[in-house]
Amino acid sequence: MIPRYSRPEMVAIWSPETRFRIWFEIEAHACDAMAELGVIPKANAQAVWKAKDATFDVARIDEIEAVTKHDVIAFLTHLAEIVGTDEARFVHQGMTSSDVLDTCLNVQLCRAADLLMAGLDRVCAALKARALEHKDTPRIGRSHGIHAEPTTMGLTFARFYAEMDRNRQRLARAREEVATGAISGAVGTFANIDPHVEEHVCARMGLRPEPISTQVIPRDRHAMFFATLGVIASGIENAATEIRHMQRTEVLEAEEYFSPGQKGSSAMPHKRNPVLTENLTGLARLVRSAVTPALENVTLWHERDISHSSVERAIGPDATVTLDFALHRLAGVIERLVVYPEAMMNNMNRFRGLVMSQRVLLALTQAGVSREDAYRLVQRNAMKVWEQGADFKTELLADPEVTAALPPAEIEEKFDLGYHLKHVDTIFARVFGADHATGGA
Amino acid sequence: MIPRYSRPEMVAIWSPETRFRIWFEIEAHACDAMAELGVIPKANAQAVWKAKDATFDVARIDEIEAVTKHDVIAFLTHLAEIVGTDEARFVHQGMTSSDVLDTCLNVQLCRAADLLMAGLDRVCAALKARALEHKDTPRIGRSHGIHAEPTTMGLTFARFYAEMDRNRQRLARAREEVATGAISGAVGTFANIDPHVEEHVCARMGLRPEPISTQVIPRDRHAMFFATLGVIASGIENAATEIRHMQRTEVLEAEEYFSPGQKGSSAMPHKRNPVLTENLTGLARLVRSAVTPALENVTLWHERDISHSSVERAIGPDATVTLDFALHRLAGVIERLVVYPEAMMNNMNRFRGLVMSQRVLLALTQAGVSREDAYRLVQRNAMKVWEQGADFKTELLADPEVTAALPPAEIEEKFDLGYHLKHVDTIFARVFGADHATGGA
Amino acid sequence: MIPRYSRPEMVAIWSPETRFRIWFEIEAHACDAMAELGVIPKANAQAVWKAKDATFDVARIDEIEAVTKHDVIAFLTHLAEIVGTDEARFVHQGMTSSDVLDTCLNVQLCRAADLLMAGLDRVCAALKARALEHKDTPRIGRSHGIHAEPTTMGLTFARFYAEMDRNRQRLARAREEVATGAISGAVGTFANIDPHVEEHVCARMGLRPEPISTQVIPRDRHAMFFATLGVIASGIENAATEIRHMQRTEVLEAEEYFSPGQKGSSAMPHKRNPVLTENLTGLARLVRSAVTPALENVTLWHERDISHSSVERAIGPDATVTLDFALHRLAGVIERLVVYPEAMMNNMNRFRGLVMSQRVLLALTQAGVSREDAYRLVQRNAMKVWEQGADFKTELLADPEVTAALPPAEIEEKFDLGYHLKHVDTIFARVFGADHATGGA
Amino acid sequence: MIPRYSRPEMVAIWSPETRFRIWFEIEAHACDAMAELGVIPKANAQAVWKAKDATFDVARIDEIEAVTKHDVIAFLTHLAEIVGTDEARFVHQGMTSSDVLDTCLNVQLCRAADLLMAGLDRVCAALKARALEHKDTPRIGRSHGIHAEPTTMGLTFARFYAEMDRNRQRLARAREEVATGAISGAVGTFANIDPHVEEHVCARMGLRPEPISTQVIPRDRHAMFFATLGVIASGIENAATEIRHMQRTEVLEAEEYFSPGQKGSSAMPHKRNPVLTENLTGLARLVRSAVTPALENVTLWHERDISHSSVERAIGPDATVTLDFALHRLAGVIERLVVYPEAMMNNMNRFRGLVMSQRVLLALTQAGVSREDAYRLVQRNAMKVWEQGADFKTELLADPEVTAALPPAEIEEKFDLGYHLKHVDTIFARVFGADHATGGA
Repeated sequence: MIPRYSRPEMVAIWSPETRFRIWFEIEAHACDAMAELGVIPKANAQAVWKAKDATFDVARIDEIEAVTKHDVIAFLTHLAEIVGTDEARFVHQGMTSSDVLDTCLNVQLCRAADLLMAGLDRVCAALKARALEHKDTPRIGRSHGIHAEPTTMGLTFARFYAEMDRNRQRLARAREEVATGAISGAVGTFANIDPHVEEHVCARMGLRPEPISTQVIPRDRHAMFFATLGVIASGIENAATEIRHMQRTEVLEAEEYFSPGQKGSSAMPHKRNPVLTENLTGLARLVRSAVTPALENVTLWHERDISHSSVERAIGPDATVTLDFALHRLAGVIERLVVYPEAMMNNMNRFRGLVMSQRVLLALTQAGVSREDAYRLVQRNAMKVWEQGADFKTELLADPEVTAALPPAEIEEKFDLGYHLKHVDTIFARVFGADHATGGA
Repeated sequence: MIPRYSRPEMVAIWSPETRFRIWFEIEAHACDAMAELGVIPKANAQAVWKAKDATFDVARIDEIEAVTKHDVIAFLTHLAEIVGTDEARFVHQGMTSSDVLDTCLNVQLCRAADLLMAGLDRVCAALKARALEHKDTPRIGRSHGIHAEPTTMGLTFARFYAEMDRNRQRLARAREEVATGAISGAVGTFANIDPHVEEHVCARMGLRPEPISTQVIPRDRHAMFFATLGVIASGIENAATEIRHMQRTEVLEAEEYFSPGQKGSSAMPHKRNPVLTENLTGLARLVRSAVTPALENVTLWHERDISHSSVERAIGPDATVTLDFALHRLAGVIERLVVYPEAMMNNMNRFRGLVMSQRVLLALTQAGVSREDAYRLVQRNAMKVWEQGADFKTELLADPEVTAALPPAEIEEKFDLGYHLKHVDTIFARVFGADHATGGA
Repeated sequence: MIPRYSRPEMVAIWSPETRFRIWFEIEAHACDAMAELGVIPKANAQAVWKAKDATFDVARIDEIEAVTKHDVIAFLTHLAEIVGTDEARFVHQGMTSSDVLDTCLNVQLCRAADLLMAGLDRVCAALKARALEHKDTPRIGRSHGIHAEPTTMGLTFARFYAEMDRNRQRLARAREEVATGAISGAVGTFANIDPHVEEHVCARMGLRPEPISTQVIPRDRHAMFFATLGVIASGIENAATEIRHMQRTEVLEAEEYFSPGQKGSSAMPHKRNPVLTENLTGLARLVRSAVTPALENVTLWHERDISHSSVERAIGPDATVTLDFALHRLAGVIERLVVYPEAMMNNMNRFRGLVMSQRVLLALTQAGVSREDAYRLVQRNAMKVWEQGADFKTELLADPEVTAALPPAEIEEKFDLGYHLKHVDTIFARVFGADHATGGA
Repeated sequence: MIPRYSRPEMVAIWSPETRFRIWFEIEAHACDAMAELGVIPKANAQAVWKAKDATFDVARIDEIEAVTKHDVIAFLTHLAEIVGTDEARFVHQGMTSSDVLDTCLNVQLCRAADLLMAGLDRVCAALKARALEHKDTPRIGRSHGIHAEPTTMGLTFARFYAEMDRNRQRLARAREEVATGAISGAVGTFANIDPHVEEHVCARMGLRPEPISTQVIPRDRHAMFFATLGVIASGIENAATEIRHMQRTEVLEAEEYFSPGQKGSSAMPHKRNPVLTENLTGLARLVRSAVTPALENVTLWHERDISHSSVERAIGPDATVTLDFALHRLAGVIERLVVYPEAMMNNMNRFRGLVMSQRVLLALTQAGVSREDAYRLVQRNAMKVWEQGADFKTELLADPEVTAALPPAEIEEKFDLGYHLKHVDTIFARVFGADHATGGA
């Protein structure tokens, strides 16, 4: 978690203050449930809520932990200082530290998921707006970095939208994975605490009870969560890479937004670097690096070992904070991306019509020219384009052998962009729904 | 993909024969759809089905590919040899190689997922049966490898069941991720082929049309698929590690099945190695190793580059074949695992009752003994157990200061296993449904 | 980088203060070299050293960076505030930001490597001391977690020593990898700066000039560096796992040190958790997680893109700080590990001599008994041990068919531990040198 | 290991035939050493060499293994069939299977390293040749994909040479890591075999004795080996990515070789895809995927568990075969890469001199123009270039305010490529040695 790649909203989820607040809520709700069951006096349960509006003193808790070497005990000691030692004496009864720690972690992951979802929503909204805006902006499609057939800039935005929309669904499921809590005691048997307490606490904290826990909540849930973040991060890299390509000097079909006042832009107007998307590429690597340790965390010895804990202390904040930042950075880039339709058209025409050679070849054979002859005709005109800088269509129209087979109008038709873009609406309807297919921006 | 860690059913999915069969079906269905649209003659579409029962000659196709350097063209050439060059002349019209390759890959992944699901089903069935069998077999729960509180062997099986059941749900979703096909042409615009063809082919092949493809199906789907396999593999390692621990000499609470005739077992009866579960630990690492390259595959340049292809040629078969084998190996281990309830009881009693010290401590304080005194009483009797090998309960019953506070019957009660196991039914009902909670096997 | 898993010495290397100090030194040395070449006035070069003992004001630099959006420019502006704008006007002349950033990063990595080396030295010293101390402490060797043949605790320490000693050599090479600097300008051509400046700066900073750089120092060096940290971390996990096994309740051959005053130890004397080594297992995962992004960083577009930068901002500090902490934690664990030789002997005797069955079998065949008969004789006595708890040697000595072939003295000899440990000295001489082989601690 | 990405030389190293041949040599040399020590009769040792020229029957060994479930025993049985049961009766005496398996694995890895080194040599030779060929071929240097300052194509080749040369050194060290053997018995104590046997076998097999082994050779060595392969693979991706960029339509500064007969090249002359380098990008991911499991393999339980074995059965062949293939594919690409110097010059001139704006700005200030004025002068001429397609130098020469400060000759000088390339020789001398700096190819 690096300050410059962090948004305060997400950082706050992982602050000690938030953690202690969640711990408090878990303990207080647990007391309520125990009081309800008659296990502890109702007055004591009520007393705990005295701390409801208190600010927990992180420095004080650290001080106690320095002595007790135990974070939950340190917190409980501080809580007793607020609530009163006698009133607080039933707090945590029958519970184990992991009941609090694991339930808290999942609350934090759920909140992190909610923020990430908002980031994805923003990315999707930006992609959709730009897709609709450029639905019909022609652009050359490229396979292997080489010109292939025409497509549109809108389709590029739309496919990233579709990917990010899938990521929304994945994130929703990943959130479901970790939306469980456990208050089940030292080895998960509820020996010293009634399962009702778990049910009550989970309901209050927005979680489901973990059907079967040991001392801890099983870590396959968290592995799935972080694996999903890795997939989302890879999607960010995918979009960022497209933009990096578009901005490179020789392509220059789009640029990250450059504020007018930014220095250097006018003396070296070509030197605007896609640093945000390059940065996103790096951030994607960082988020992905959480996946393997999360998978390694799944295996615990017997009812628990604590190897997973240090990993989660790192990747919990790191992966969510970095991904959150990256999503908003990406959204900003897309929202303000400067698109150059004219440059797209220029690039498409770079080889003066050659991208249409396939269609001409097909048309010639369909007009009855043998495959070999058709190939020869296309080739000799293509070579003039390639070697002498001629225009393909002009050459074809001037080649009597070609026009003998294909009337000029048909040749013209082969260079019609509309042929390639006729199903853009269909695709938009699939991606955004029927109402967005034809309207444009 | 290593023969000794492979099952033929899964290997078959990735054979050239299967691949060519799927290619054929895609091409034949595409012809049907084109004929339906009137784009190609119905007779030609029907003619293609002449190859329906043919066996494609892999060696012949390889031979052609050696010349053409293109696998799909080699296949189409061979298909024409079967169907007739003239009849076959409309096959693949308007399509791009990736239409066939990517749709085929997803068919293979879906079939692989189906086999994996069967493996998971078998694992779950085995875990459930053993869980019910040992629902009430007491065993010491361990945190940090150290004795904590009693649990049961059934709960151990049940928690692995719950994890594997989650893995079933994850696999079902992963299958959904890749259950798409695309017949959309060189850059995904349907320039040369009607979207109806895609719909028809997908319906016939059990897939959904990819809403928006480029030249390829987007690779975030595959990333999610392989990430899910990584989570499942980690779950296998989790269960395997538990068994490895149980079988180690000093614990010996269970053993992988050893056939009676297996040599060496009687001269060195202690030397039965948990080699299957150790092997599963290694196989889990292999399956997991597919996750990162699959994530790296998500980013493609523009409408496609082919960097993903070599990766998938490897991890497609490797990860699914290895995981399939591992699931069945794990199922076999669990089905035949030799469980030693007596050894479990002996291990639990290793410290002659000391695991109950916590309950005694609590009982003393609840009986009005001060916390300090209670601690002192427990400690002095615990130390006799620890240092002199005495029995904890016996010592407590013989300590007048203890019995003054706690009547013998109450002391006896603190050593009652039933206290710890009273909620086993509740947990089983959560995991297996209410009907399995009380009945046993 | 998590405070609780950090040592201040390593954290300091990555502080802004240290970074600015290194930047300053690079710039000042560069001015010296330029003055030497006559490119800038000597007075200006000397003036820069006015800042030698200054403390750079991080808040002020941040403030400037908030405006300029450029960290190096912000630093240079602040430097000019200290040195004097006019005096400082030649600072950084002909250089590019990466010249400073990359050279600084490598200085930091070298310093980090030096600290890590000190950590490895401490680990090695501890392992060596404990190896010599327990050179002759017998312990059962285990394959697959199952008793195999006797070894000694000293050999266990010695093999971890040998591994960590290899890690020292690897780290020394990894440090060499990154001990380069570059002052070569915007694309590495020295267009605006003489190569002599690079040589001078590198010599002063303890680095070698990078033979060929672009805008940046090539990242394969850093990849190798972090990959090496991953190997070292895995070695830590290896040692930690051994200790976790030794401490588990049923084995209990050693324990992490527990201070006498630590609460709970006497009421539940069995409940001492190997939390430090479990923690080390998790920390190892974290350090390893830096390896893949470091490998992904190797590929940069043309003369540089900045995707690597965010990755390094994270893994630079994270991996070195975590590994540094882990090395010292491991050293502390080993230095104070409480070893129980008696428990080791008890565990070895758990099957009352059965581990020697192999030697007896061999002796019988060598004495002329047929392989089948020898097996039968061993087996029938082994079974008494296994099933009735008898002592293997006693049974053999009481079996007339056995004693007919092997005189009692020879049977006795087969149970001699010395047979197994006779080459311990040889191995120690290999690992620690001849002088340590026989002396003991 | 995929046939199409394999070279037979490397595949052969991992064949059963080779493995059995190495096993044989280990066993035969061990017998020699034992005979020398007088432990077994010399005649029996000599007899084993009867199998020296035999071909081991893989099918027969498989057949035996199907019964014995043990590969080494199956081999020894077959060996006895060749040598004679009686003559062979001392083979493997005192040894454990891992002695053979681990020593064999390291022999295979050393041989694999030798082949990989040959591949790296070929890559380096190709890079050096092309570097010398294009030492002075000007090309625009790019940071962030954006034009920066001129460099040369030779420098690009030279930096990949330098990286690959480092990879040679790394590979040499990685080979050293695994060039050890162990013949030390069940737990590494040499209980049943004299250390001399190990020394003898290792000397004969080209290995060093492992100073301290357990049942196995420690796996940190293999981790370092595979981590090094991962770094080399990343270097391949780095070079491949450069070529992919050069070949993209808008850049087209170089192309993978296209044989004249290759179809399609003349009708669509622009459609030559960099499929080899894209493929190399994928292969790099595959090789890298071996790193994490190799790191996870380091931790073994006590004196060994067998979790590492299945991993090595896969990554041993897979990573070496794939990397070997990739190195030769890369070498072929570089050897035959079609370089377009004219296109490089055209790209450099794309913005008609604007890349020199920085030098002009500097020259103006050095000529006494204030920083603000100099910037204004450069900017107004730069804008004509950017917006109206003018030529920068022409505009500057026509701007009286500019020429008032800078005489035309000086302006001309600022556009001199020689300024940028003056240190190319220096860099070449650093990379290739002094003799290659000035001579050219």
